[in-house]
Parts: sequence; structure tokens; C-alpha cells
Amino acid sequence: MNIKPLGDRVVTKMAEAEETTQSGIILAGSAKEKPQFAEVIAVGPGGVVDGKEVKMELKAGDKVIMSKYAGTEVKLDGEEYVIISQKDVLAIVD
Amino acid sequence: MNIKPLGDRVVTKMAEAEETTQSGIILAGSAKEKPQFAEVIAVGPGGVVDGKEVKMELKAGDKVIMSKYAGTEVKLDGEEYVIISQKDVLAIVD
Amino acid sequence: MNIKPLGDRVVTKMAEAEETTQSGIILAGSAKEKPQFAEVIAVGPGGVVDGKEVKMELKAGDKVIMSKYAGTEVKLDGEEYVIISQKDVLAIVD
Amino acid sequence: MNIKPLGDRVVTKMAEAEETTQSGIILAGSAKEKPQFAEVIAVGPGGVVDGKEVKMELKAGDKVIMSKYAGTEVKLDGEEYVIISQKDVLAIVD
Amino acid sequence: MNIKPLGDRVVTKMAEAEETTQSGIILAGSAKEKPQFAEVIAVGPGGVVDGKEVKMELKAGDKVIMSKYAGTEVKLDGEEYVIISQKDVLAIVD
Amino acid sequence: MNIKPLGDRVVTKMAEAEETTQSGIILAGSAKEKPQFAEVIAVGPGGVVDGKEVKMELKAGDKVIMSKYAGTEVKLDGEEYVIISQKDVLAIVD
Amino acid sequence: MNIKPLGDRVVTKMAEAEETTQSGIILAGSAKEKPQFAEVIAVGPGGVVDGKEVKMELKAGDKVIMSKYAGTEVKLDGEEYVIISQKDVLAIVD
Repeated sequence: MNIKPLGDRVVTKMAEAEETTQSGIILAGSAKEKPQFAEVIAVGPGGVVDGKEVKMELKAGDKVIMSKYAGTEVKLDGEEYVIISQKDVLAIVD
Repeated sequence: MNIKPLGDRVVTKMAEAEETTQSGIILAGSAKEKPQFAEVIAVGPGGVVDGKEVKMELKAGDKVIMSKYAGTEVKLDGEEYVIISQKDVLAIVD
Repeated sequence: MNIKPLGDRVVTKMAEAEETTQSGIILAGSAKEKPQFAEVIAVGPGGVVDGKEVKMELKAGDKVIMSKYAGTEVKLDGEEYVIISQKDVLAIVD
Repeated sequence: MNIKPLGDRVVTKMAEAEETTQSGIILAGSAKEKPQFAEVIAVGPGGVVDGKEVKMELKAGDKVIMSKYAGTEVKLDGEEYVIISQKDVLAIVD
Repeated sequence: MNIKPLGDRVVTKMAEAEETTQSGIILAGSAKEKPQFAEVIAVGPGGVVDGKEVKMELKAGDKVIMSKYAGTEVKLDGEEYVIISQKDVLAIVD
Repeated sequence: MNIKPLGDRVVTKMAEAEETTQSGIILAGSAKEKPQFAEVIAVGPGGVVDGKEVKMELKAGDKVIMSKYAGTEVKLDGEEYVIISQKDVLAIVD
Repeated sequence: MNIKPLGDRVVTKMAEAEETTQSGIILAGSAKEKPQFAEVIAVGPGGVVDGKEVKMELKAGDKVIMSKYAGTEVKLDGEEYVIISQKDVLAIVD
């Protein structure tokens, strides 16, 4: 699979509602809500986005926390992804 | 047919709800929703759009993922197209 | 008749719900919706609009596709026109 | 009467729902809606408006077409006027 | 009483629903609506407001017409005032 | 108590619904509405706020009139305060 | 645990509805509302956020008052955190 986000976007794969990261953190999200935890799969090139220079801070493999209401859900090969602007990613967890 | 988008817009032809790309990816969209996958048919010249310089990153033939709620549907010669700003195209799939 | 649009506006005359352009394209619009196809009748001078320099790309005689919800309908001499910002014109068809 | 609009505003006097201009155009507006045709009575000085330099293009006596939902209705000496930003005036008719 | 408006604001005292100015204009406002006519009582210093340089055009004593939905009503010493941004004052009447 | 507002914010203590200032002004607010009169208790440092340089004009002790719908109510040590941006303070009363 | 906020964001841990700070201030929030008091746990790097340079004023350990409707609640290791933009933090209490 080859998916190339445009601009300041990243493609993320949603984490299960509860999972343990390598450092042992239990990431818990309500089973009924869209989970807020995800892993970055692909990162856009950044550059000028809406007239403003954007530098990408995220890289593939980052575990991130996202705003609940941001991003676009996309189904590819039977799996759920969320494509989201880097500015709507709140934090990196490791 | 000759359709020339203005500014940073591209004309896209919606993909069927399920189709397989050349690289074998199955693009699945809910049959009831406007599909999010499309092929770029024509690309605007870019330039100054709303006071900001825009460089076109897309080209005819690109398979793209779009925001569900963006773009304008247009029927030409009996076929459905979506005219959309490049900034509302989320990613290129190949 | 002499109608001079201001700023980046153009005056367009709505096309019938279905018509064939000179190049043979059938332009089809739902009979119940405001048609999206129109012919440019008059073009504003452009210049500084809302603090941004705008260059007019359209000219009288252009066949255009417009956003369904943009523009202001005006009745002049018994005919319907739409006055619309050039930035809400999506594409030129020929 | 002496009414001096501020900034980029103009004072207009609404035309009757149907009237014929000197060039013979019949200006028709729905009797139930606020008419869209008006004559410019007074013009503001322009200058810096909301941080942007505005040059006045309109002058007293211009017959104009306005956006239906723009401007503020004011009653002076028993007559209805609309005070409106020049940027909400769509076109000049003559 | 000493009331000093901040930034680009002015303090105005609402006119009665109907009154005659010195030049004989009858200012009529619907008795049920907030009147649109007022006299300027105090003027702010202007300067940089929301990042933009604003020059005050109004002075105490000016009779003005205001947007119906702008400004904040304040009761001081039993009298009604409206504090309003200069940019929401539409015109000066004299 | 030590409360330090950030950016262009000020901490204010709401005045009673009716009180007389030292200069004898009776400040009257509807008993049912959030009062619009307050005394400034602490002032933020100003500086760059949302990309714009802001200079603080207010100082502790100022009696101010505020927009009814602006600011955040906070209870500290059993007393009500409102933290508000300086740009939502309408005027100083003395 | 290692959580790194992006841009101008800070991670805060909500205070109990009522608690006493070291300086003896009783922080009281309605038990039914999201409390407005929190302690800063981690601070983003600042830098260019939405095209504007942001300098971080907060540091881990700061007790802060936040806007009631700002920020995103996140559950990590069974505890509630709020990730919030520095610009939505109203004041520091000590």
C-alpha cells in the first residue's frame, strides 16, 4: 500500500480502545467514542499550507493523541485510518 | 470534453464504491455515502488564490482521497464529477 | 442594457437545465435546483478586493460552472442573472 | 438633510419594486422582498477600513444592485434608506 | 460623571424614538426596537486595536446612526448608554 | 492570594448590582444579569497575543465596564472573579 | 509515562473540585462542572503555531486556571488529563 498525504497531513491508524504501549502506558478510550490514540503511518511533506510555512514534527511510528473531532476517517483494505492535519495532533506518547 | 478548473481547483471523477487500484488496494466506501476516492481529470493553474500563492501538487491521473464534505458535485455528459480545491484533497493513493 | 459589476464580480446568465454547448457537451442540471451552468455576460475590473489584489481570469462569453450556493440572483428586463464573485466560479467549459 | 456615511459605506435610497431607468431597463424586484435596486445618495470617504485601504468607486447618483441581505435600513424624514458597505454593492446599472 | 472608552469605542446616548435635530430632520425609529440614533458622549483614544491602527473620526456631540445589533447597552445614573466600536457607527447626521 | 493573568487578560472582581463609586455614580445592573461593572484586581503582562503586540492600558484599581457575554467566571476563596481579555473591557469609569 | 505536547499545548492534571494550594487558597469549582483548576504536567516546545511565533510562558508544576470549554480531556493510566493550548490558560495561581 502506498498512501501519500498532502500538505501538513498525516495518516494514522487508530489504536484499539485499550492497549499497552511499549513503555507500559495503558491507553484507554471510551469504547463508544472514536478512540483518541493512534499510530502515525505516513507523513505529508509540509511546506506552504494555507499561505503559512509548516514544518512536519511527526514521523511514521509515532504514537499520538488526537482531538476527538478532528480528521477524516478512511477505510483502506478493510482497515480504518484517520487522515488528520498535524496541527490537530495534540501530543506524542512514548 | 474540455473543462478547465479555475485557481487551485481540480476536477475529479468519483470512483465506484469498491474498486481495486493497479497496486491491488481495495478502495471501499459506504455505498450510501458520497465516495471519498476519485481520479483527478483536470487541474487548475494555481497561482494567487485568496491572496495566497498556491502551487499545484496534483496532476491528471492521480488517485486521491478527499474530505467527505468538500467539493461540488457536477453532472457532465451523464457522468458525476466533483470539483474540489486542492487543499481539500487529503492524500494520493497509488 | 449596461450592467457593470464591481470588484471581482461577474454577471452570468443561467443556462437552461439542459443544453448542448458548441462542442457538443450536454450540460445537465436538476430541474428543481438552481442550475450550475451559466454564460458570463459582464466582468468586473478586479483590482484590490478585501485588501487582496485580484486579477480577472474570466471574460464575457465564457461558459462556466458555479457553486450551487454562491452568487446573488437578479431579475433584469424579465431575465434571470446571477452576480457572483470570480472566486466562486469553479471552472470554464468549452 | 445632511448624512455623512463613515468609512467605506454609502447611503442608498431603495428603488420602487418596478421602475424604468433612463436607459429603459425595467428593474423588477419581488414586491414581498426588500428590493435590490437603489440609488446612491451619499458616499463615505473610504480610507483605511478594518486595516485595509479602500478606494471608493461609487458616487452619488449611481444606480446600483445590492445583495439582498446586506446593509442596514434606516428611516429618515419618513423615507427608507439603506446604509451599506461598498463591498456589498454588486454592480452599477445605467 | 467620567467615562473613558477604551480603544476604538465611543459612548453614545440613545435618542428618543422620535426627535427633531437642530437642522429639522425627524429621526424616527420603531418604538419597539432599540433606536438607531444616538449622540456621541465620549470617544476612545483609538490607536492599535486588534493589531490594526485605528484613527478616531467621531467626536463628542456628533449625532450618529448605528447598526441595530451592535454595541453594548449600559445603565449609568439611571440613563441608558450604548458603548460601540467606531466601525459599527454607520453615519453622522447633522 | 496571588493570581497572575496571562497575556492580555485582567482579573476583575464584580461590583454589586448597585453601588456608588467614589465620584458618586450609581452603577446599576439588572439583578438577574451578570453585572457589567467590576474592579480590576490584577493585570497580565501583555506582549504578543495571537501574533499581535498588545499594550496593557488597564491597572489594578481601575473601575471598568465590561461586555456582558465576555470573560470567564472563577470562584477563588469564596469570591467571584471574572478573568477577561483587555479587548473586551469597554470603558473605565472614575 | 512520557507525554510530549506539540506546538503551544500543555498537558494539565485537573485539580479536585476543592483543594487547598500551598499558599492556602481554596480552589472551588462546581462539582458538576469540569473543574477549571489544574496543574501543568508537560509543556510543548512552542515555536511557529498557525503561522505565528509562540513563546511558552508556562512550566511543569504551575497551578493554572483554564477556560471551562477549552482543551481536550484524555484518560491515561486511569487518570484524567486535559491537553490545552497555552492561549486558553487564563492565569497562574500560586
